[in-house]
Parts: sequence; C-alpha cells; structure tokens
Amino acid sequence: MSLIENLNWRYATKKYDPTKKVSTENLDKIIEAARLAPTSSGLQPFKLLVVTNQEVKEKLAPSSLNPEVMVDCSHVLVFAGWDRYTAERIDTIYDKTTDERGLPRGRFGSYTDKIKGIYLNQTAEENFEHIARQTYIALGLSMAQAAELQVDSTPAEGFDNALVDELLDLKSLGLKSVTLLYLGYRATEGDWLASMKKVRNTTEDFVVEFK
Amino acid sequence: MSLIENLNWRYATKKYDPTKKVSTENLDKIIEAARLAPTSSGLQPFKLLVVTNQEVKEKLAPSSLNPEVMVDCSHVLVFAGWDRYTAERIDTIYDKTTDERGLPRGRFGSYTDKIKGIYLNQTAEENFEHIARQTYIALGLSMAQAAELQVDSTPAEGFDNALVDELLDLKSLGLKSVTLLYLGYRATEGDWLASMKKVRNTTEDFVVEFK
Repeated sequence: MSLIENLNWRYATKKYDPTKKVSTENLDKIIEAARLAPTSSGLQPFKLLVVTNQEVKEKLAPSSLNPEVMVDCSHVLVFAGWDRYTAERIDTIYDKTTDERGLPRGRFGSYTDKIKGIYLNQTAEENFEHIARQTYIALGLSMAQAAELQVDSTPAEGFDNALVDELLDLKSLGLKSVTLLYLGYRATEGDWLASMKKVRNTTEDFVVEFK
Repeated sequence: MSLIENLNWRYATKKYDPTKKVSTENLDKIIEAARLAPTSSGLQPFKLLVVTNQEVKEKLAPSSLNPEVMVDCSHVLVFAGWDRYTAERIDTIYDKTTDERGLPRGRFGSYTDKIKGIYLNQTAEENFEHIARQTYIALGLSMAQAAELQVDSTPAEGFDNALVDELLDLKSLGLKSVTLLYLGYRATEGDWLASMKKVRNTTEDFVVEFK
C-alpha cells in the first residue's frame, strides 16, 4: 500500500479492543520510523517513552482526556523533548556524527557555534517550542508506519503534561512530554468515529499556487 | 518500498540539479500527503503555498540560509499556519465536517465550545505555536511521500519569515510561514551530504521502555 492509501485508511481511533496487542515486531517498526525522523540540524532533541506495562498505563490514564482509550490501547508512546538545548547536548550529537562518518571531531564546529549562538541565547521556553515542533515530525511518521502495518493509532495532546512528566520521572532525564500516541486495534462497534467519513479541506482550499 | 526503506533513502539534499523538475503527478501526491495529515481537533489550521514559478523562487531566495538550494530546486513548498484561531475558523471547519458526514450542524457544539474556550483565551503567539506544531506533521508526511517517489527534499527553518510572508502576501490570507520544503532531484557530485552516512541515536539511546 502507498503512503496515501495508508493515510486514508487511518483515523484517530476512539475505542480500542483491550484483548488485541501490537506485536513486538510491529512496535519496533513504529519506533524505527520515529527514530529515522529528520530533525532541525540533526539534533534529534527527544526520546520516545514506550509504555507496555498495564499498571503504568493505568497510572497515566488520569492525565488523559480519554482515560479509557489509554487503558484499553495496546501501547502508549510518549514523545518527550529535551527541556532545553545545551552546548554539551549539541556537542554530543555532533561528536557522534563525525565519529560515525570518519571525520575529525569539530569538522562542523563553525556550524555548531552558530546554532549554539542562537539556542543558548534563547529562553528555555523558546528552546522547548522549537524542540516540541521537531517531535511532531516523528509523531506523524509513527502514525504513517502504524497505518502501513494496519495498526490503529490515536495522537493525543491536551493531557496533563506535569502528571505524565512526574509519573515517568522525565525531569531526571532532562525531558518534558510533548505528545502521546496510543497504539492498538480498534473496537469498531464502540467507536463512533470508525464509520465516519474522513474530512479534509479540498485541495483547492488547501493549496495556493505560484505558477 | 516500505516507509522505513524510504526514510533510510532520504536525506536533506544540499544541491539540486536545476534541469530536473518534479512532475505534476508526483507533486500532486506530495501535496496530498500533506492534505491528509492529521491535525489537532481536525482543524487543519494551515495552507500549503506551492511555488513552481522560477521568478518567485528567485525573489524568495534571499530569505533562505541556502539561496542556491532554493533557486536550483524544482519546487518550494511553504507550510503556512493560521495567524490565530478564531471562532469563525473553527465553526467553518466543523460545519464542513458535519455537512460531509450528513450530521446536523452543531452536532459537535459542546466540543467546539470547549476548544474555543481554550484557544480564544490564549494570545495569538500561543495559538500560533500550537498551529505551527501541526504543520510539522504535514511536513514529515510530505517528505515521506517525496521519498516514496524517489523525489529529493530538504526541509528548511531559519529563513526570514517576515520576508517570505511579505513576498507571498500571506498576511492578506491570515497566514504566517512556518517551514519550507524544497523538492527536486539531487546533483550528487556537488552535494557534500549525498555520500555521508545517515546518523541517528541508537534505538537503545532513543527509547525508554516501561515493560
């Protein structure tokens, strides 16, 4: 199936079948799509928290606008961004990059100096907004990968970030939660959205052409 | 090819062959992937500016950190978000949604009241940050679609947003530019990144499991 067919197949699942679990093989592919996501300057400023444990899901559920969805789904992914950019974090990524490419460390020094000059002069909040944006690329690619595997998914914002951060001890990792992605298999009968038409703006409304 | 193979194939192209153009058929698929992108509450709070015209690309080039890339690529996509949420914009989307689903207008009234209560009490800047995040989902899916078609692409931030907004008259559309995506075909010989290894954090570094 093509990406477009997969995107037409998917929808934000509103009710999961709690008896159906995503296989490790499929879960690994969904994680891999997020890992391969491009990010600004290649900094990959986030981690993916993968919650399989039912007790942890139940503890997290009160943070969600749809606790039942979180409890019934197979896995919860938490996209969690760096709390801010630091010189050390930037250097660590670029040292790894040069090492893996067989280049001398510091090969991209003028570039990393430039991005440090930008990010380290911003507030932590400004940094985090930029970081949060990057996680949405990975979120989108994970949903696309899930759809390719006919795994259902539900992206979720509007949860209690502070509670999620506390329960998963994200502060100690220098991270803050951005979005959630529920994974699993739809319980079609209980899902009001399953049979509804996907609605998008028409191409004519969506696109402005400069020909 | 699978999404993972496509993501491994792609890289942020640094030099385009100016003689090679993306076909209309392929361009339409890349636009379609962005159009199908899920967004928060289904609001689709952005448009896609599609720049084919070489003169417009050349006018835009000074806004970019890599003017040559913009001039040489085949097409420039500009992801431009609503300048803010309004009750009218939210109602327009939901009226369209209920109409297309054969439901009475106002069927989701309690939900739209809730999101209006959140967004209309935020500053335009807070609105725009949330809107900008949504565009990154579409950006990621467009890159994935381009890769599926073996079309090269380069996502770009760090450009002069004010200049782009002015040149494309985005203010009159109630929009602000967020990211660019260059599309085209790599000029392998002149592209220092084309032969470099893709570097990502290892899965072990990227994932925190709660089993």
